[in-house]
Amino acid sequence: MVDRVYNFSPGPATLPVDVLQQASKDVVNFKETGIGLIEMSHRSKEFMGVAAETESLLRELMDIPDNYKVLFLQGGASSQFFMIPMNLLGSGKKATYLNTGTWSKKAIKEAKLFGDIDVAYSSEEQTFNRVPSQDEYTVDAASEYLYFVSNNTIYGTQFPTFPETNKVLISDMSSDILSRKIDVSKFGIIFAGAQKNMGPAGVCIVIIREDLLDKTPENTPTMLTYKTHADKGSMFNTPPCFAIYGVGEVLKWLKKQGGVEAIEARNIEKASLLYDCIDGTDYYRGHAEKASRSLMNISFNLPTPELEVKFIAEAAAIGLNGLKGHRSIGGCRASIYNAFPKEGVEKLVAFMKEFEANNKG
Amino acid sequence: MVDRVYNFSPGPATLPVDVLQQASKDVVNFKETGIGLIEMSHRSKEFMGVAAETESLLRELMDIPDNYKVLFLQGGASSQFFMIPMNLLGSGKKATYLNTGTWSKKAIKEAKLFGDIDVAYSSEEQTFNRVPSQDEYTVDAASEYLYFVSNNTIYGTQFPTFPETNKVLISDMSSDILSRKIDVSKFGIIFAGAQKNMGPAGVCIVIIREDLLDKTPENTPTMLTYKTHADKGSMFNTPPCFAIYGVGEVLKWLKKQGGVEAIEARNIEKASLLYDCIDGTDYYRGHAEKASRSLMNISFNLPTPELEVKFIAEAAAIGLNGLKGHRSIGGCRASIYNAFPKEGVEKLVAFMKEFEANNKG
Repeated sequence: MVDRVYNFSPGPATLPVDVLQQASKDVVNFKETGIGLIEMSHRSKEFMGVAAETESLLRELMDIPDNYKVLFLQGGASSQFFMIPMNLLGSGKKATYLNTGTWSKKAIKEAKLFGDIDVAYSSEEQTFNRVPSQDEYTVDAASEYLYFVSNNTIYGTQFPTFPETNKVLISDMSSDILSRKIDVSKFGIIFAGAQKNMGPAGVCIVIIREDLLDKTPENTPTMLTYKTHADKGSMFNTPPCFAIYGVGEVLKWLKKQGGVEAIEARNIEKASLLYDCIDGTDYYRGHAEKASRSLMNISFNLPTPELEVKFIAEAAAIGLNGLKGHRSIGGCRASIYNAFPKEGVEKLVAFMKEFEANNKG
Repeated sequence: MVDRVYNFSPGPATLPVDVLQQASKDVVNFKETGIGLIEMSHRSKEFMGVAAETESLLRELMDIPDNYKVLFLQGGASSQFFMIPMNLLGSGKKATYLNTGTWSKKAIKEAKLFGDIDVAYSSEEQTFNRVPSQDEYTVDAASEYLYFVSNNTIYGTQFPTFPETNKVLISDMSSDILSRKIDVSKFGIIFAGAQKNMGPAGVCIVIIREDLLDKTPENTPTMLTYKTHADKGSMFNTPPCFAIYGVGEVLKWLKKQGGVEAIEARNIEKASLLYDCIDGTDYYRGHAEKASRSLMNISFNLPTPELEVKFIAEAAAIGLNGLKGHRSIGGCRASIYNAFPKEGVEKLVAFMKEFEANNKG
């Protein structure tokens, strides 16, 4: 077996080795039942147990209040872009969006199919290198909700604190859920694709306040109505069993690490190592404004695109994988979610210093 | 490790042991890359290779013509119930449905949200114990398409031959895809959730004729438009990577078995063993009319519900698992998809004879 490489991929992203090894056993023979996890009826008591434990761990780790439902849905965060306005808006209804990157932009496009969308802030003209502070936008009094993306995977920005509003607050937390302590009770809906901070691709977690389940317009397809899944414990139809199992295993691992507060401290430590390296030289330039920096995705540039190509290739050659930036902004990006080990960040920082010394030109 | 049990579950369903063992290796370290399959970027050359090979094997095994797209979608077959009419109908448009079980009934309910639905045949009053022959229904001249479910998992019925029509023919083949040779060119859309005959839960395969991609009404959400996924090779957003991989491994296994024709012969042989047992006594009664019998799901009853409970429990005790019928009709059901071994059917038949002898009353 080849040594494990450090995988800086933005998602699907590196998972804890313990989780991979447990999955390796369970897919073939789950808990000595003689049936593999991936061929087991979703209505078996074993799989119902997996789903229940996964939900219960998420509730515990995020301290989710009882008046919220936790749903395991398919179609990725991209399906929430239309499901949210489809369930909460309708002719004549309004919502406010903060446009801070590719994913909010896509969400705005879909929302416009279902209502009157007010984009109260956009950093698009600054290549999305920042998120707004509270005084940089106003929420229309007629809005049903305020929507924002807490962490922008591509541009490496993150809301350091959340918008304060008396409106229903909705957040796409795909790339920073469980990475820092939050107060769920401030939100109407939190959703996140699992494949960055929570598990394998194939499931999207939706945490929704119960009163929002009754707002869906008539004639919405059954599968697209939140209440369908809330009423059936996400088993209205066959759920993505393996992905739900994978999330459960990641949550068990996270609990062993000390939970969200402990991982948050480690995330700050890991990101600081990288930002200190970037700030210590003019050779590397961070994409995000300092006040908007993400602890999860660190997007940066070298002096020239040619040096970036060389940097990415030489890094890969020593087991630092997936450092290429997103095609929409180029450059480099290090995604260092919860499960990314500190040793990998240290190795990257050492390599960055060495590369700079060797390629000053 | 406990011996493997015979798993008669209707889905998620038994998978080939070779597939489970390969998955067990690949989740931890895919092809010696030092990265596990379930933590690997969907845009990595390795995963792009997995997806391309899966599609290519499906095209080869089903002999799919070049003017059809193969899509890997999420949301299960249940999401196709609304996506099909959402993409192909609209105000004033009509479609014809054959109602032969729970899944067609659910599809009809969703279709009614998008057009004028003509139910040309229904066996609901006979507890869905049969499918119609060609002369038992007519398709309205104004219909955009004719929709049917080729195999009814719950009731154990199956269309022995397919409807002939000059309309676009659409079939839900969730529980018998790849179990028998079919002529794809007769169909407009074939779709199937993977978790019965093709792999783990979490992906739905849609095979769609290209001319149908241009019929979607304006203002359909991006993720719900077939063309979105067709244009992006099912990578518009993060796909359900593990489930696609699992389908690919099952297809490799199927090819090694000799392909669809070889597996069809074996499916006929397996089902005959069970039906011969049922027909050789009055103790067991098959639910389906003989001419409508399914080769995949065999639903049957014993003289009393009490005996059925005893039968299911005693079977489970000797490693014959998952024989309980669906809650909507009760009784017993043996699901014997492609990957279910003949030895398991032989063991069930032996047990059925023994149980009858011991419980004649």
